[in-house]
Amino acid sequence: MKNILGRELPNSISGYKAVKPFTGAFESLGEVKKRAVKLQSAISNHQKLLGSIKEALEKCNIKDGMTISFHHHLRNGDYVMNMVLKEISSMGIKDIKVAASSIFPIHEPLVEYMKSGVVTGIYANYISGLVAEAISRGKLKNPAIMHTHGGRARAIESGDLSIDIAFIAAPTCDSYGNINGVDGKSACGALGYAVPDALYAEKAVAITDNLVSYPACPIEISQEYVDYVVQVGSIGDIKGIVSGTTKITKDPVGLKIAKMTSKVIEASGLLKDGFSFQTGAGGTSLAVAAYVKELMQKNNIKGSFAAGGITGYIVEMYEEGLFNALFDVQCFDLKAVESYRNNKGHQGMSASMYGNPHNKGAVVNNLDVMILGATEIDVDFNVNVTTSSNGMIMGGSGGHSDTAAGSKLAIVATQLIKGRLPIVIDSVTTVTTPGETIDVLVTERGIAVNPLRQDLIEKLEKANLPIMSIKELKKIAESMTGVPEKIELDDKVVAVVEYRDGTIIDVVRKIKD
Amino acid sequence: MKNILGRELPNSISGYKAVKPFTGAFESLGEVKKRAVKLQSAISNHQKLLGSIKEALEKCNIKDGMTISFHHHLRNGDYVMNMVLKEISSMGIKDIKVAASSIFPIHEPLVEYMKSGVVTGIYANYISGLVAEAISRGKLKNPAIMHTHGGRARAIESGDLSIDIAFIAAPTCDSYGNINGVDGKSACGALGYAVPDALYAEKAVAITDNLVSYPACPIEISQEYVDYVVQVGSIGDIKGIVSGTTKITKDPVGLKIAKMTSKVIEASGLLKDGFSFQTGAGGTSLAVAAYVKELMQKNNIKGSFAAGGITGYIVEMYEEGLFNALFDVQCFDLKAVESYRNNKGHQGMSASMYGNPHNKGAVVNNLDVMILGATEIDVDFNVNVTTSSNGMIMGGSGGHSDTAAGSKLAIVATQLIKGRLPIVIDSVTTVTTPGETIDVLVTERGIAVNPLRQDLIEKLEKANLPIMSIKELKKIAESMTGVPEKIELDDKVVAVVEYRDGTIIDVVRKIKD
Repeated sequence: MKNILGRELPNSISGYKAVKPFTGAFESLGEVKKRAVKLQSAISNHQKLLGSIKEALEKCNIKDGMTISFHHHLRNGDYVMNMVLKEISSMGIKDIKVAASSIFPIHEPLVEYMKSGVVTGIYANYISGLVAEAISRGKLKNPAIMHTHGGRARAIESGDLSIDIAFIAAPTCDSYGNINGVDGKSACGALGYAVPDALYAEKAVAITDNLVSYPACPIEISQEYVDYVVQVGSIGDIKGIVSGTTKITKDPVGLKIAKMTSKVIEASGLLKDGFSFQTGAGGTSLAVAAYVKELMQKNNIKGSFAAGGITGYIVEMYEEGLFNALFDVQCFDLKAVESYRNNKGHQGMSASMYGNPHNKGAVVNNLDVMILGATEIDVDFNVNVTTSSNGMIMGGSGGHSDTAAGSKLAIVATQLIKGRLPIVIDSVTTVTTPGETIDVLVTERGIAVNPLRQDLIEKLEKANLPIMSIKELKKIAESMTGVPEKIELDDKVVAVVEYRDGTIIDVVRKIKD
Repeated sequence: MKNILGRELPNSISGYKAVKPFTGAFESLGEVKKRAVKLQSAISNHQKLLGSIKEALEKCNIKDGMTISFHHHLRNGDYVMNMVLKEISSMGIKDIKVAASSIFPIHEPLVEYMKSGVVTGIYANYISGLVAEAISRGKLKNPAIMHTHGGRARAIESGDLSIDIAFIAAPTCDSYGNINGVDGKSACGALGYAVPDALYAEKAVAITDNLVSYPACPIEISQEYVDYVVQVGSIGDIKGIVSGTTKITKDPVGLKIAKMTSKVIEASGLLKDGFSFQTGAGGTSLAVAAYVKELMQKNNIKGSFAAGGITGYIVEMYEEGLFNALFDVQCFDLKAVESYRNNKGHQGMSASMYGNPHNKGAVVNNLDVMILGATEIDVDFNVNVTTSSNGMIMGGSGGHSDTAAGSKLAIVATQLIKGRLPIVIDSVTTVTTPGETIDVLVTERGIAVNPLRQDLIEKLEKANLPIMSIKELKKIAESMTGVPEKIELDDKVVAVVEYRDGTIIDVVRKIKD
């Protein structure tokens, strides 16, 4: 069958529930249900502090076939997933489903567990490194299920993703399970992605390398939700957890794109008092922030909020009074962690509050402008950030689809050509984010506006910005690179890309060896 | 039938679900379930801000028979319940169940709505004033259901108490439903009792007199849970919301009891580093705090936390470094509000985190010492704080039963005689809190220890404290007052007193006219 974007989906996918094709970005809204939660209530004097991860696994009655979850605030410095899987493997447990909010190169040991049958399923919003490659090569028994950040929260809350045991890497924790991310040697700041896991898993285990006296204030995840606490030597490598500072690009092409993007924002009419904004931690994204900052200062604009993974650069804008508040699901650098610890207006948010389409209103719904990246974008504005152009998984939506759907102006800002390949093509290898939610593409060669946004086209034309159709941009790119050859892939589905509402927006097929 | 305390319960109670007798304070723990929640997910650009309470009622499809809820952080200054019921009444709606965390004299208009059939059911943790009197006189169609603070959270989370529309009095709110209690002219501080309502009600409406630009940081209740926002002129009378300061008693009898209580605490061995403590806002309770403070200073003791409704006096102890943190479900005075706004270690907690027996561990479970009051206490240490000795409802458990069950040392500190009546009697008029969770009774005439606590008896004897049996205390009281006559009540049940686990610990019968 085909979904509404014309993507070919199998009628059924082995190892996956019934196929529900994507029907449009805003089709699923309305009456929804959050699942019931089973739990074991605590008795007085219940001791939560255990001696080892193994003991915690035993107390949680770990069994073949269970789903265990992890959050990715420690990013490529995370030790916790590897430690837990090592124990599970040595206990002889098989057929585990790993629901990690994201998977990084450091999680390479997962590849061996996939091969040995310890791990047979993976849910993640973003997968990079050897695990992504192994999935693409068909090494995982069941197809990986790729969510968006908000979609993962939705899946957990609705029961689509049912977690038996959540493991929460806790930079600071007390013996009764109160957790924060702002203190300790592995401080990573906001813990937004771990919140749905804690609230909805049947069991939750905190793994900490900074056990403090009760209570571990300020509490980000409460004792109400935590069954056990385990102290370990280290939950992660600080070098992989947060960077010292994130930096603006010095590349002239990146700067040109950023400058044009800021002009698009200005011309859109959104850059006025109450302005809200989100951008990533990449060099070009930060350059956009820098130009926006100049414009805000020049025009004396007082913004409402900046959101997202927060960087030191955005903190500076907040501290200069350009924004009223920061909404933070995850801190990207040490300056952001420090601000989250100290600034009252630096507000944490759960993944659900950030981007879940099935609550009473996520933060993305209030975004004016979102700056996005793309690996590929097609002539219908569908964006791929899941696979590379050879079909290999190298990322995933993260908050891409959530913010695109929520924001008033979703801008893809990217070079027109990367690694000798055109970014604009007829049909993307994988659709991550549907074109109906992308408003503008800004490249160094010109700007294309989604024809759905005639209002915007008029505004940008009036501002004399270099507008052209996306097909013209494609032609320019192809004139420099030639038309890329179509890749051939196996029929086997190795990953299912779920849109934020849980419908299938695309599938990823096995790489041909 | 009789429950385990020997209290006579009808086999069935008209207007109440199936009778489940109380079987012991810790019998219900183990596997439990939190209910599924139905909700309407927001679309982008969904406008939450409405023009009036009436419009909110219409948008929420208010209907005969619905259950609507309120929180009591505005206490005897609350305007919100009356405003909402007035609208409902004028819309001609009938048979409404009011689930208010507490009801105060200001809610007197409820009496008329009970008589006219607009309101036919009441759930509350505490009821005083004319509403309590009207219930006692049989004016409410169905029996009132009286919860504990933690038990109400449990009932809401489990589905025992299903809320159609929660009305949240919001001292500060933005147009997308983010709420805090620390700013605005009606600032009341922590909003802990409103949290379960917001999370589990099908619809939630914020009523605010301080609408601020988005976002209303620091956010205590998030936009994820709020459907609509209504701005009104005033949500309450600040004089009834918080007192300027709460003060230590000057009464010599109260001071004597407080001093003895502090000696009991000292002799118990609990007063050491890591000490945790809760007390009420009454003059004698604060005097206990003052003596405890002296002891902590003298012995250089660094406590873990103080909890509860927080007063300025407890804030001073925190600011002097005597406690690591404050757990606050509700601020009792302006100094507490200010501290909650500014001190990082002044930690908010929901009613569930505070006292729900059916989560993975409430704060009360970590309390060392709890200071309680009593209207009556019987020779089995069962305490009544629900009715006066003539059988009239004049209060309710609030956190009484929760803290008694959770704490290591639950002390009832009270005068032996009040209003010419003995406090210690053979059988209390109504059991609020079971004797098995009460450890000590301290009066100005002597101290009685629950025989279940032989360890404590030994310690207090060693400290030369004036210990006697509770029957001896009763005899002393009766020698001064005579034996009080047994009151006669009607058979009709006007209120069901649910223990924190939802079983019936007692019923309240109609006053005979």
